Amino acid sequence: MSITLNSPLDMHLHLRDEAMLKTVAPLSSETFSGAIIMPNLVPPVTTKEQLIGYKERIGSAIGDDVFTPYMTLFFKPTYTKEFLESIKDELTAIKLYPAGITTNSEGGVSGFDVEELRPTLEAMSELEIPLCIHGETNGFVMDREAEFVSIYEKLAAAFPKLTIIMEHITTKASVEALDRFENLHATITLHHLLITLDDVAGGMLQPHLFCKPIAKRPEDREALRKVALEAHPKVMFGSDSAPHPQHAKEACGCAAGVFTSPIALQVLAELFEEHSTIENLQAFVSDNAKNIYKNITIPEKTITLEKKSFVVPEKYGNVVPMYAGETLAYSIV
Amino acid sequence: MSITLNSPLDMHLHLRDEAMLKTVAPLSSETFSGAIIMPNLVPPVTTKEQLIGYKERIGSAIGDDVFTPYMTLFFKPTYTKEFLESIKDELTAIKLYPAGITTNSEGGVSGFDVEELRPTLEAMSELEIPLCIHGETNGFVMDREAEFVSIYEKLAAAFPKLTIIMEHITTKASVEALDRFENLHATITLHHLLITLDDVAGGMLQPHLFCKPIAKRPEDREALRKVALEAHPKVMFGSDSAPHPQHAKEACGCAAGVFTSPIALQVLAELFEEHSTIENLQAFVSDNAKNIYKNITIPEKTITLEKKSFVVPEKYGNVVPMYAGETLAYSIV
Repeated sequence: MSITLNSPLDMHLHLRDEAMLKTVAPLSSETFSGAIIMPNLVPPVTTKEQLIGYKERIGSAIGDDVFTPYMTLFFKPTYTKEFLESIKDELTAIKLYPAGITTNSEGGVSGFDVEELRPTLEAMSELEIPLCIHGETNGFVMDREAEFVSIYEKLAAAFPKLTIIMEHITTKASVEALDRFENLHATITLHHLLITLDDVAGGMLQPHLFCKPIAKRPEDREALRKVALEAHPKVMFGSDSAPHPQHAKEACGCAAGVFTSPIALQVLAELFEEHSTIENLQAFVSDNAKNIYKNITIPEKTITLEKKSFVVPEKYGNVVPMYAGETLAYSIV
Repeated sequence: MSITLNSPLDMHLHLRDEAMLKTVAPLSSETFSGAIIMPNLVPPVTTKEQLIGYKERIGSAIGDDVFTPYMTLFFKPTYTKEFLESIKDELTAIKLYPAGITTNSEGGVSGFDVEELRPTLEAMSELEIPLCIHGETNGFVMDREAEFVSIYEKLAAAFPKLTIIMEHITTKASVEALDRFENLHATITLHHLLITLDDVAGGMLQPHLFCKPIAKRPEDREALRKVALEAHPKVMFGSDSAPHPQHAKEACGCAAGVFTSPIALQVLAELFEEHSTIENLQAFVSDNAKNIYKNITIPEKTITLEKKSFVVPEKYGNVVPMYAGETLAYSIV
């Protein structure tokens, strides 16, 4: 049995910079047509020069692969309409982080006062630039995302023409919000379709499965699986693949992030096949994104998966992938 | 300001064996009068010979310290009344583990069929041997203890004369069960009075705070603090101090357990003082245990704490304690 995917997209990706960028970028550009590139570098991407420079460095890292990095800015409430117009051709979306909520997000938003955010969000709305949000409060770790849903809803109501992406949703509460506002959409990661907190901390502690938002309860995973497997038109695949060097994952004070880029399509194929929904995989990994992001052009690329064992390498460079050393059912051929 | 404690007791302690026993036993025997010693060695302590041998090895490890190791057997439903009578003088309690629920618990109980457990539990009840239980189901990690409450209640109702200790309780649900059955009691650890899941996985992942049962929600910690700080007569201090070598805590697949023996009394003093309940500390760390365990004799020992900085060592042997390298407000003088 073989599965053909047209132009798969990863709508939430961390490529980092420098040596790490060179290690991980080819692992996405080989198999995906394009990806939304997160701007949380140190310092974050907030100017046209930084954005273009980063895009060029990504271009060098991927070599000849057919792959479009969809560039993003790190949200600041001081972006003017003129600035956004000047950068519009290079920019696909803007990513908003609550301050200090995840890796390199110290300069994020501290309050969610609609009037303070209005100038930038209205400009984005008029220029049809989507807003990607890492939606967590600074509350108790299992409640952070559910607590943020009211902020998603406040923003969706205040800016009804703004395309809002609830990034890497992990809860039933977020899934339920999708249908309440026309302009709310979501990305879902591979790992949140697979694991719950039990896999991270139910047996031995598994630092390679530690991520933000943290994996939640079985009923949350069920809600995510339902909309992903049916390819609900408001959800799309975004890996949130986030490489950290092995020493940063296996240390005391382990960094958050799961590295899935090189295994994502193979594992998604297996998951969708297991649930007899393989016909929905194309929409989940590409077509839905095209409909949600109206401002992207997608390079043609055909990926073929075959039911043939693939032993996941123990490491890519110094990064340990999810399922390191394990055997997957599907290979990319 | 100084605080004097008479004969502090640690009613739940892991001393392990061999080199680790030699490292950690003196760190308890220095400051405590006695401790309930958990039997989950490899293999577990299930015979009189093993129990006496282990008690002797503990005796060698503590040297001249005035300290009584209260010995326990690893629960098996096949213990007869004759066997228990033959060992009664050496034995303080029996510890029941659900199979596979924590470190070295593979040989534990798989079902909680009252009739299957009846012969041993009735014998214990008649001989006045308390039953200590690690109360977790194999459900979702945040629900395991709350799900076990109905099993605690079933056993408490079926064996009303049996003293049952709900070990290292971590939830509001367990606290609430205390008052529903006269024969239910509980130990509470230091770390569950201090941390929630946020401290383990809310920021960076903290393997040294990873334990079983896992730290729960803020409202659970509040419920534990309430009964500990008021020294509710059915609760007593049990550190569940559980040493693992540093490499086993900071590795991929980190072992569960927090090592608190050498800092427990200092931190408890600070916590009780902060909450203006210092007059209850004596009951929490000793007197309540004496009333719950009617079968123990407690050596006289006076411990004095003074408000004087204590810098916690980075390691004791190869074991990293809680608050390693940090400064505590109280010292033992």
